[in-house]
Amino acid sequence: MKNIRLTDLERYVQEIMEKMGLTAEESRIMADIYMETTKRGVGHHDIYNLPSRLEALERRTVNSAPEFKRLSSFGALEQWDGDNGLGELVCHHSMERAIALAEDHGIGLCAVRNSNHYLCSAPYVLQAARRGYIGFIIAKGVPTMGVPGAKGKVVGQSPIGYAFPAGGADPVMLDICLAYVSGEQLARMAADRLTVPGWWGVDRDGRETDSAEALAEGTKYGIGEHKGFGLAILCELLTGVLSGGLILDQDEEKPGIKARSTSHTAIAVKADGLMSREEYDRRSRELTERIRARAEEVHIPGDASWQSKRELEEKGEIVLSDTLADRLIEYGGRYGVSFLYH
Amino acid sequence: MKNIRLTDLERYVQEIMEKMGLTAEESRIMADIYMETTKRGVGHHDIYNLPSRLEALERRTVNSAPEFKRLSSFGALEQWDGDNGLGELVCHHSMERAIALAEDHGIGLCAVRNSNHYLCSAPYVLQAARRGYIGFIIAKGVPTMGVPGAKGKVVGQSPIGYAFPAGGADPVMLDICLAYVSGEQLARMAADRLTVPGWWGVDRDGRETDSAEALAEGTKYGIGEHKGFGLAILCELLTGVLSGGLILDQDEEKPGIKARSTSHTAIAVKADGLMSREEYDRRSRELTERIRARAEEVHIPGDASWQSKRELEEKGEIVLSDTLADRLIEYGGRYGVSFLYH
Repeated sequence: MKNIRLTDLERYVQEIMEKMGLTAEESRIMADIYMETTKRGVGHHDIYNLPSRLEALERRTVNSAPEFKRLSSFGALEQWDGDNGLGELVCHHSMERAIALAEDHGIGLCAVRNSNHYLCSAPYVLQAARRGYIGFIIAKGVPTMGVPGAKGKVVGQSPIGYAFPAGGADPVMLDICLAYVSGEQLARMAADRLTVPGWWGVDRDGRETDSAEALAEGTKYGIGEHKGFGLAILCELLTGVLSGGLILDQDEEKPGIKARSTSHTAIAVKADGLMSREEYDRRSRELTERIRARAEEVHIPGDASWQSKRELEEKGEIVLSDTLADRLIEYGGRYGVSFLYH
Repeated sequence: MKNIRLTDLERYVQEIMEKMGLTAEESRIMADIYMETTKRGVGHHDIYNLPSRLEALERRTVNSAPEFKRLSSFGALEQWDGDNGLGELVCHHSMERAIALAEDHGIGLCAVRNSNHYLCSAPYVLQAARRGYIGFIIAKGVPTMGVPGAKGKVVGQSPIGYAFPAGGADPVMLDICLAYVSGEQLARMAADRLTVPGWWGVDRDGRETDSAEALAEGTKYGIGEHKGFGLAILCELLTGVLSGGLILDQDEEKPGIKARSTSHTAIAVKADGLMSREEYDRRSRELTERIRARAEEVHIPGDASWQSKRELEEKGEIVLSDTLADRLIEYGGRYGVSFLYH
């Protein structure tokens, strides 16, 4: 394990992104996103994913200089092409557009096709919440999720998330997928040979299993079975279909570059569109206070992230695994970016 | 069991609503809603709920002549007061407003406070889908749902639903709540002394249970535990907070009439806002075809409803329980509306 200062990690992300061909502003956005997610302290969907981005940029499977193009618009709706750019930059842009539309219309929806892995929902929905908007985002990937009664993987597990300002308190923030467990969490559980609840899905032969390994090789179910499955179908519509991108399991080769199956849809709602900012602050704060008053031990989505963030910022440093540190050092060496730990 | 012709049932609903003081147009809307839901063939959240509405109208706990008032608006957002009207009429109005806003802005959101039980999501989201909009609706009730780790009922179980046009095929339609089981379904299971999966919730002492009766007296969990719970918090925000209505478990007496804790929020998206109608039809149809192609036995949300509807319309009649028939006869006798069965 290596201790690294947060300021050094932030500088590393920004510098290596610039070396990889991103603009200074894009590199700044990437650094913000990776610091925001890493401070949540979950150990996945954060800095641990950075090497995969560096690899993709190096191998040019992701476009380091994408030109986002608006394909279509109507009122508070927009459709864009992400030009096979980093999912993080595409989603940041998508939420910026949704916010701009919501500024004019009270609500805005921006669907973007031809993107890549977006890391997780938190940074983009917080981007909205910190500016006074209720932010919601959906990511579309390949089918990984099934439903009891039908054999096989039918729909994407639909990573989704929201955040809303809560009157002076930290924003409320949820960052989930519609399966019982995310791919990365399950892979870790499988590596540790852990058991999983039998209702999370089935093994490769369609039999109930309590083995994380067998589930990882099998099919995950949506939360609440047909409920999560049904919500995932709406997510497929709002992303792949509305973005003009690839639909469900469609896979299309384009000359030169493979079209990406990933689409994203960002929605923003002006929190104080229907009441004064003071009233919204008071009412949203009252919602969180009433939730906490109903059950002493209750966690509001985001609580754990904010606590982790406060603790890490107080310490000013974070512990990373040797494997991750080694890979960051390796990329840093190749591109002339120092990586400091003690 | 009684066989009743669908045309007779429809006439009965319309006539008795007029006798209860609704306008002809409102009575027509109520008849449409009760026929639409009853033809789904689920046996709850349909005609079986009509006696409770007749009772509420008779006792004047629900306002038979509400005046819906627009309280606030901004771009594609509107906030209304339902004036303690029937939830069905409030939701129908709310979706009409969302559609009108989406016609201009591509997307529209209408939040209404001071409403009553809306029956279920299906009729309102279909109202949107049949006119070329993606419809989404959320209903807010009192807290009935908890989350592991916190004792007690914290949030509403958030009935939600969506429907979208699918290019010539029947609309795709989901009508669920965010608990594993709805209140009415669980009450029936409890009456039949059935067992439930242990992860659906806990008994009144907070212990895991497989008894439907014990669960009905205890606390249901959200689907996917913290996931459904977290989504329900967003639903509380979008309904109670944005509508200006009662927040979470707030209960407020107003002079003369008790304010209702029920709020509704309808969202509509113009399906062909970002592409031609032909392209939307083709793409949405392709989504459903690709889902069916991935697993032979898969059901798309709404499949069962459309099959039941076709079968019932072919037969032209429906079987109702004696208990329900007796209550409809009783109310009919009191208000001079005949009820015919054979």
